[in-house]
Amino acid sequence: MVTIAQPGLAERLRAGQRQDERGNLFDADCPTRLILDRIGDKWTVLLVILLSEGPMRFTELRTHLGRVAPKVLTQSLRRMERDGLVTREVFAEVPPRVEYELTELGRDLLAPIDAVRLWAEEHAARIVANRERHDSGPA
Amino acid sequence: MVTIAQPGLAERLRAGQRQDERGNLFDADCPTRLILDRIGDKWTVLLVILLSEGPMRFTELRTHLGRVAPKVLTQSLRRMERDGLVTREVFAEVPPRVEYELTELGRDLLAPIDAVRLWAEEHAARIVANRERHDSGPA
Repeated sequence: MVTIAQPGLAERLRAGQRQDERGNLFDADCPTRLILDRIGDKWTVLLVILLSEGPMRFTELRTHLGRVAPKVLTQSLRRMERDGLVTREVFAEVPPRVEYELTELGRDLLAPIDAVRLWAEEHAARIVANRERHDSGPA
Repeated sequence: MVTIAQPGLAERLRAGQRQDERGNLFDADCPTRLILDRIGDKWTVLLVILLSEGPMRFTELRTHLGRVAPKVLTQSLRRMERDGLVTREVFAEVPPRVEYELTELGRDLLAPIDAVRLWAEEHAARIVANRERHDSGPA
């Protein structure tokens, strides 16, 4: 159980939305910024892409992600569950099987995440080259 | 001056790109993941959106962002400069004027970032409600 740090955020946003119909990233009081932190998390991005292919077990996710600490992966999955992006289902088998699956909201997130992924993959070489040029240039 | 933590990343990526023509987010050795960390940063997202309207001074950026520590903003801008997303120009006035402007690469990043922003603003209320329901439900 986690207690919410800022109770009433939903109310505040809903009140704001009656006026504006949507969140505003440039209002420091708007929870949209908290959402941005979550979907800006590298593992969330990778998990949404992976799970878009279907439900997966924890060990499968780890295998596909490579070099992620189990604790970090568990934390990301729990946060995504809390946000309503994934569901976690335990099957009564021996040994018990635990599967993660995207919710409708999680699947909906795939489109903007794919846009970011494509951009990153397309421009990675250029950015790395910029970094190396910057680091070797005059201070 | 900053020294690069992993020299040869650009070469490795370029070598990989000769085969695949682009980065691969699911290869833990591919620098695309580092790029994802950068463009996943909340302030980078907000700065790209702000600067898409034209060059801005540090104080203007601070005013628009609200509740960002000057040190944090400076760090984000320096990382974006290093990545080749923004340029920093000092005008010899009294007092000196310092302006930040998006590069062509930075302007190009606006499209995927706008997709994320629109999604966050559209779904913020639902995610906040999910969080509250989760936190008040059974453990």
